[in-house]
Amino acid sequence: MSFIATPLSMHFEEPLPLQGGASIHHYDLAYETYGELNADGSNAVLVCHALNASHHVAGVYADQPKSEGWWDNMIGPGKAVDTNRFFVIGINNLGSCFGSTGPMHQNPDTGRVYGADFPVVTVEDWVDAQARLLDRLGIARLAAVLGGSLGGMQALCWSLRYPERVAHAVVVASAPNLNAENIAFNEVARRAIVTDPDFHGGNFYDHGVVPRRGLRIARMIGHITYLSDDVMNQKFGRQLRGGLDLKYSTQDIEFEIESYLRYQGDKFSDYFDANTYLLITRALDYFDPARAHAGNLTQALAASQAKYLLVSFTTDWRFAPARSREIVKSLLENRRRVSYAEIDAPHGHDAFLLDDPRYLGVMRSYFDSIAKDIA
Amino acid sequence: MSFIATPLSMHFEEPLPLQGGASIHHYDLAYETYGELNADGSNAVLVCHALNASHHVAGVYADQPKSEGWWDNMIGPGKAVDTNRFFVIGINNLGSCFGSTGPMHQNPDTGRVYGADFPVVTVEDWVDAQARLLDRLGIARLAAVLGGSLGGMQALCWSLRYPERVAHAVVVASAPNLNAENIAFNEVARRAIVTDPDFHGGNFYDHGVVPRRGLRIARMIGHITYLSDDVMNQKFGRQLRGGLDLKYSTQDIEFEIESYLRYQGDKFSDYFDANTYLLITRALDYFDPARAHAGNLTQALAASQAKYLLVSFTTDWRFAPARSREIVKSLLENRRRVSYAEIDAPHGHDAFLLDDPRYLGVMRSYFDSIAKDIA
Repeated sequence: MSFIATPLSMHFEEPLPLQGGASIHHYDLAYETYGELNADGSNAVLVCHALNASHHVAGVYADQPKSEGWWDNMIGPGKAVDTNRFFVIGINNLGSCFGSTGPMHQNPDTGRVYGADFPVVTVEDWVDAQARLLDRLGIARLAAVLGGSLGGMQALCWSLRYPERVAHAVVVASAPNLNAENIAFNEVARRAIVTDPDFHGGNFYDHGVVPRRGLRIARMIGHITYLSDDVMNQKFGRQLRGGLDLKYSTQDIEFEIESYLRYQGDKFSDYFDANTYLLITRALDYFDPARAHAGNLTQALAASQAKYLLVSFTTDWRFAPARSREIVKSLLENRRRVSYAEIDAPHGHDAFLLDDPRYLGVMRSYFDSIAKDIA
Repeated sequence: MSFIATPLSMHFEEPLPLQGGASIHHYDLAYETYGELNADGSNAVLVCHALNASHHVAGVYADQPKSEGWWDNMIGPGKAVDTNRFFVIGINNLGSCFGSTGPMHQNPDTGRVYGADFPVVTVEDWVDAQARLLDRLGIARLAAVLGGSLGGMQALCWSLRYPERVAHAVVVASAPNLNAENIAFNEVARRAIVTDPDFHGGNFYDHGVVPRRGLRIARMIGHITYLSDDVMNQKFGRQLRGGLDLKYSTQDIEFEIESYLRYQGDKFSDYFDANTYLLITRALDYFDPARAHAGNLTQALAASQAKYLLVSFTTDWRFAPARSREIVKSLLENRRRVSYAEIDAPHGHDAFLLDDPRYLGVMRSYFDSIAKDIA
């Protein structure tokens, strides 16, 4: 069993200006910390989360033995990111639905639930909010900022937006921006949610309903893109749910893969907020540091001062290795120090959350070297 | 402009037994023919359609100059499949929504619209129905049966179910069965339709509505899988719809790819039947000639007597070249005569409908040789 983690929350009164022009004030950020900040505050590691994760990165909650954090295999005492050496911080992003202020909370300006009025937030906005929390925790500079997928985009963004505050950026299974296909999948998922009659223009809270149909479809699409073709064939193939006989039905479950997807969709619709899904997929769509440089990623990365580790997985077709290599190439063109590992793993995008010994080995060895730099 | 095509229809009284155990009687098949059947009936080519196509394969309808058939670039006077030499037949499949009997028609047993009661039909059932139409047309044996994608599955099925009636089977951008990922995409599309409140359990005709939301989502998912990643990036990339400024909205169209998908979804929901979508995707899921042979495709293809042309496209990730190669390998293990072309085309699955000169050249040369055999 893992160590006991304790969820914390920090309140912020002062307005946070957002990229979209709006600002947000009187908000809370949920976070957790593991390990001890050392005397000179030099051992802090910030972990940024992806679409449906949270500040609960590692450990379990008291009396909930199965509540392991989403990166518990990576982070903890004696693990690749060793909390005996590092002070690790997980933060739930603004607009999410796990404790930080989001669409289901009260808008202090109107006294009503935000719903559809919650402002669009970007990766840059999240990084700014995270920076304020670090200020409050007295952390001037991070030993490392670390994230996978959308979390990797935040790590990359940190190194550009606060270059003097980041010693190392660890960007796993990520990309310098979404390509057209990625945006397309996000858009289908959003349309499924928005056109669900129970969405009520984003104000479904007032109607006592949840747009479950849309959330289910969104999650099913997501799951297809998280897995590799190969792993899906190995895990499910054409296996029938009900034995050898076909049911000859268009609506009954016939194949195991259908059962798996429906189950994942149902589960997701029980706990995830529909407005949060829209906001987070949009933040993914918008992230594009090269945009302000006419698409030139090398120019965009010139602001960085950090050292980098990039990791990708061969069967990840959502954020393919080629996308990580674009970042590596642009960093090298800026003469930054970059390590890059392309892990030959069968699990697709999901690999960044799984126990691949080569992957965990690369991470352990990189964080070992960071720890030695600090000591 | 192309030649004038005329839609025809044939009525069948006698029951057609279906794989699922039910049967269908008093049904119509919509079809078209191009060219002239020769004296000994040896120049007939049957074209099988894929998901959303029909019997209108080539030519245009009188006074509708833009109504070209879906394979008009391939089939017609002087084209790769030359209607000056071949008698080409296109048939709309049972359960489709373009003229043949389908869920929106009256069930002769109840006097009510079939709706959800339309029986599940399989590729085998379609081939049986097509065979009966050929009987009526006095065609004992086909010079060739030809199809792409799901149409290719029908062509393959023809060569196994009626081996003595098929001289050549031309199987383009197809597969010996769907893999788990293919089934997964079909299932998400079906769930989007079935859970649309306007679906009414398949009896939406009685309510004067159409489950448009579900059909839109289904079509958007389809379009993503028809295109290659590369062609999507070239065609749309991250291009914004509204010029240089971001709107910072989760629901407004921001990227060109979103606009394209929404347009395709809207268009599709105007003309395609929701029950047909369920039936046809299910026929795709079920097709698996190796199933009756414990998964051994070579044994399954032992029944064939035809000569084969298989064509695949390098960027087709829906029906990847590896799937066509499985068929080629199993045919060769049965010592059948097989030609195989793997076309290096950028367009993904859609390539089988497009004007690639190498692809059209392969088809022309293969059909030239068939024509010479006949003459």
